[in-house]
Amino acid sequence: MSWPTVKIHVFVTPKKTVLDPQGEAVGHALHSLGWSDLRQVRVGKFIELEVDAGEEKNLDDRIDQYCRDLLSNPVIEDYRWEIASR
Amino acid sequence: MSWPTVKIHVFVTPKKTVLDPQGEAVGHALHSLGWSDLRQVRVGKFIELEVDAGEEKNLDDRIDQYCRDLLSNPVIEDYRWEIASR
Repeated sequence: MSWPTVKIHVFVTPKKTVLDPQGEAVGHALHSLGWSDLRQVRVGKFIELEVDAGEEKNLDDRIDQYCRDLLSNPVIEDYRWEIASR
Repeated sequence: MSWPTVKIHVFVTPKKTVLDPQGEAVGHALHSLGWSDLRQVRVGKFIELEVDAGEEKNLDDRIDQYCRDLLSNPVIEDYRWEIASR
């Protein structure tokens, strides 16, 4: 028997209190292109995971653990994730 | 009068047909940490924009244009965006 595939979306963003040079650069570029109404830009990571969801029970904990340990740097980044499809 | 701020979320992902070395590397790392059910990882960008939504009419076109011209590389990346809040 094969387990259904679960798609997980992880969003990693620089914390509000942390400088985001990439976001600043993109913001300046968009201003130069004429987007004067633009107030702020933050650039983060978007990670798509596909998992065979055999061990449903621990999935949430597992995702949280790997988000903290590998996918984000908790000192300077926040993360959130959602199940995109089952 | 001040316009309400619109939050826009932009998701930029490598096209399915394009190699994603960063995703491969993250996938291998998660496998090493013991996530054997993991099938695929793709790493993209997550961009948060805050705009004073004065010129509502053109907003959608404007976002599309800047996604194509600056925020993504249409040769190797797909993008999608959504209004996160008004």
